[in-house]
Amino acid sequence: MSATAGLSPLRVGLAGLGTVGQSVASLLVGDAADGIARRAGRRIELTRVASRTPKPGVDIGGAPFSTDLGSLVGNDVDVVVELIGGDTTARDLVASALGAGQGVVTANKALLAASGDELFALAQRQGAPLGFEASVAGGIPIINVLRAGLAANDIGWIAGIVNGTCNYILTQMAVAGQGFADALADAQRLGYAEADPTFDVEGIDAAQKLAILAALAFDTGIDIDGVHAEGIRSVDSEDIAYADELGFTIRHLGLARVAGGGLEARVHPALVPNDVLLAKVDDVMNAVMVHGSAVGGTLHVGPGAGGMATASAVVADLIEVARGTLPIPKPASRRLPALGIRAVRCPWYLKIPAVDQPGVFAHVAEVLGEHGISIEGVIQRPQDIHPGEAPWVPIVILTDEVAQDVIDDAVKAIEGVEGVTAGVTHFRVVHPDALDMQGDA
Amino acid sequence: MSATAGLSPLRVGLAGLGTVGQSVASLLVGDAADGIARRAGRRIELTRVASRTPKPGVDIGGAPFSTDLGSLVGNDVDVVVELIGGDTTARDLVASALGAGQGVVTANKALLAASGDELFALAQRQGAPLGFEASVAGGIPIINVLRAGLAANDIGWIAGIVNGTCNYILTQMAVAGQGFADALADAQRLGYAEADPTFDVEGIDAAQKLAILAALAFDTGIDIDGVHAEGIRSVDSEDIAYADELGFTIRHLGLARVAGGGLEARVHPALVPNDVLLAKVDDVMNAVMVHGSAVGGTLHVGPGAGGMATASAVVADLIEVARGTLPIPKPASRRLPALGIRAVRCPWYLKIPAVDQPGVFAHVAEVLGEHGISIEGVIQRPQDIHPGEAPWVPIVILTDEVAQDVIDDAVKAIEGVEGVTAGVTHFRVVHPDALDMQGDA
Repeated sequence: MSATAGLSPLRVGLAGLGTVGQSVASLLVGDAADGIARRAGRRIELTRVASRTPKPGVDIGGAPFSTDLGSLVGNDVDVVVELIGGDTTARDLVASALGAGQGVVTANKALLAASGDELFALAQRQGAPLGFEASVAGGIPIINVLRAGLAANDIGWIAGIVNGTCNYILTQMAVAGQGFADALADAQRLGYAEADPTFDVEGIDAAQKLAILAALAFDTGIDIDGVHAEGIRSVDSEDIAYADELGFTIRHLGLARVAGGGLEARVHPALVPNDVLLAKVDDVMNAVMVHGSAVGGTLHVGPGAGGMATASAVVADLIEVARGTLPIPKPASRRLPALGIRAVRCPWYLKIPAVDQPGVFAHVAEVLGEHGISIEGVIQRPQDIHPGEAPWVPIVILTDEVAQDVIDDAVKAIEGVEGVTAGVTHFRVVHPDALDMQGDA
Repeated sequence: MSATAGLSPLRVGLAGLGTVGQSVASLLVGDAADGIARRAGRRIELTRVASRTPKPGVDIGGAPFSTDLGSLVGNDVDVVVELIGGDTTARDLVASALGAGQGVVTANKALLAASGDELFALAQRQGAPLGFEASVAGGIPIINVLRAGLAANDIGWIAGIVNGTCNYILTQMAVAGQGFADALADAQRLGYAEADPTFDVEGIDAAQKLAILAALAFDTGIDIDGVHAEGIRSVDSEDIAYADELGFTIRHLGLARVAGGGLEARVHPALVPNDVLLAKVDDVMNAVMVHGSAVGGTLHVGPGAGGMATASAVVADLIEVARGTLPIPKPASRRLPALGIRAVRCPWYLKIPAVDQPGVFAHVAEVLGEHGISIEGVIQRPQDIHPGEAPWVPIVILTDEVAQDVIDDAVKAIEGVEGVTAGVTHFRVVHPDALDMQGDA
C-alpha cells in the first residue's frame, strides 16, 4: 500500500494553459504523479482547469475545464496555480483566491513586481500559503535557498544572470562573433526570444526578478521603480572582444545589496572577470550568486525558463503546500529607500572612438585626471581602420572605482575633446565583493 | 516591537564546542541573533551546552555548561544540536534525544552513513524533526534543494565535488604543477587537510556524503557499503597535464544514479570536460550537480567546510524547526541493491608506460581491439625522457564506453605486452549524461 493512502489529496485549480501550464498539467496527470505524491506525502490532484482560450488538445486528466477563471475560486480547489501572466486579471484572480482562503502558487514576476507586497499582506491576513518559486530563475530553487537554505545569514550581495535571452545573445556575440541584431534573430528563431524582445533585452524582466530577490534577501518591500534597469542593445561584439582582452566577459547582471542605508538594485551589462564561475554561465542558463555573512558565497545555476523547468518550480511549491511547509509570506519589516544609481561606485570600461592623431590619448587621460579618475588598464590598437571612414582608433580604458555622476561628467568632457569622434561607450565592471566566494569568518 | 515578541523561544542544547560548535554558538548568541530570530519568527536560544572537554574561552552567552552530554536530553531543551562527531557516542546522544521527543540537528555524516536509516525511523516514530543539512557539502543547502526545491523531479543523476581537501589538492597539482605529496603538505599547512588525511584523500568522507545524497535523491536506504570509493593518491601531475591536453580536468567526483535496477554510487577521480562548470570549481569549493526529469540540470556551488559555512547550515535547520517546517524524516520506501562497480560502463583514460621502441603502440592497440575497446584519442610524445631511466614514452589513450571488468582484463593484458614497463594508470571519464544541463522536455 502507498504511504499516501488515507490522506486526502491536495486539490489544484490551474489557471492558464500556455507552455508552463501545459507542463504543470503533464506533471500532475502523467507518469510523474506517483513520485510527486510520494514526495509530497499525499496526491496532488488537478481538480479544475481554466483558461481564457480553450486548448482542447492538452491532456488535463479529465479535470473540468472552463474559460471562466472565476470557476477556480472557492469551490473544490485548495490551491490556485496562476499561470495566465500579466498583472491585472492575474491580480484579481490571486486576490480573489487568497480572499477565499485558498492557497496560491504563481510564476508571475510581473504580478509580484507590481502587487507583491499587497498580496503578501493579504496572504498573511488570510493565513494562506503563497508560493512563487517559479517567478525567478525558473528551475533554480533560489527562492527556497534564500527563504530556508541560507536563512541563518545576513545577505551581503546578490549577483545574478536572471534573463536567459540576454545571456544567450551575449554568449552568441562572444562565441560566434555575431552582432546584436543577428544574435537576437537567432534567439528568436530558437524560441529563446519573443517577436517583441523589448521586455527581455531592455532589462525589464531581469529588473522584476531582481526586485523580488532583493525584497526576500534584504527584508524590504518589492520596489520595482527603485531598480535601475539597462538592457544589452548598447553592447557590440567589439566591446566583448576588448573586454576579453582585458580579462573580462560581458554578462547582463542583476546586482543588489544594502548600501548607504538604502537598497542598491541594478540591472545592466557588466564586465565579469573571466576566471569566475559566473562568467562561464553560457547560453540560456541562469545563475544566482548569494553572498551570506556566515556561509560566504554560494552559486546556483540552472535553466531560467522553459515549460518543464518552470513547472518543476510550480510543482515544488505545490508539494510544500501539500506537506504544510510552504511558508505564509511575511510582509517585509522595513521599506528601504532605493539608492539612486548616481550614488553607485564601481570601476568602468570606456570605449572612446578617436581619430588616429597624436595627443588625443594624452588629452583624454588629462580629462580623467581632472575628474580624479585613475586608469587601471588601456588598449589602443592603431590598426583598427574602419573602411569608408577616416582612420580612427578606439581608446579602451578600464578605470578604478568611480561614482556614476563623476563618470557621467567625465564622459561628457571626453566627448568634447578634439579628435574624439562619437559617443563614448561605457559599461560597469562588477564589484569584486559581489563575486567573493569566501565567508566573513 | 519585534514581530517575534510573544512567541516562546526555541530552546537549543548544543553538544560539542569544536570549530563548528563554536561558530553555531557565535551565531546564536552574537550580533546575528536578531536577524535569525526575525527570519525564524521566534528567538532561537542557546539554553544548554555540553562538551566532553571544557572550553572556557568560548562565548556561550551565559548558557549552563556541562561535560555530561546527557544533560541535554529531556530537560529544558527543544532541539539537540549534535556536533561531537564520530558514530558511537553521537549515536547514543541522538537516539536518546529523539527518544525523549526532542528534535535533533546534526552535521555528522559518519553517523548518518552508519545509522541514518535507523535514526530516521526513530524520528518518524517519535514525530521529531531531524535536520542534517550540514552533513553534506557544508554551506551549500543541497539537502533542502533535493528535499524541497527539486521535489517535483525524478532525479536522474547526482554528480558532485563533495570533498574540499581533494579538490584543493587536485587544483594545486594542476595550477602549480605540484606533486600529490607537496599539494597535500600545503593543504595541511593551510588547515584544509588533517594531520592524518586518510579519511579525505581515500574518498571515505566523500563516500559517506554521497550515500546520504543518493538515499534522499533516489528514495532508498543509506548504503555506505554499496558506494565504491577510490581516493586521489593515484593521480599524478603528469596525468593532469595529459588530461588537459585531451580537453579534460581531473576532479574527485561522487556520482550516483539508478541503473540496472540498482543504485550506482561511486567516488573516484574522474576526467571532466574542461568546458563544463564542474571542471571550473576550484580549491576547497564544493559543487553538486543534480539532474532532474523536469528541470534538467542544476548546479549548486559553495564552501564545503569551515566553521561558519557549516554553522550556516546547522542554524538553517534550527530556523526551520522554529518555523515548524523542518520535515520529519521519512524512511525510504525501498532499498535498492548496490550496482557493483564491475557493471559500471564509462569511457576510460589509460596511461601506459612503454619503452620507446617500434611496435609497442601497435601491440597495445591490438590488445584493446581484442577486448572490443575503441580508441577515441591518443597522445604519444617521444620526447618524454625521464632522467636516469631507459628512454620510455607513455602512451595515453582515451577509450569509448567500456565496462569495468572489460577494462580490467584489457589492462592486465596490456601490462603483459613486451615493452610496457610498469603498471597502467587508468581513470574513468565522467558520463556525459551526468553533466547534461538540459531537461527531458
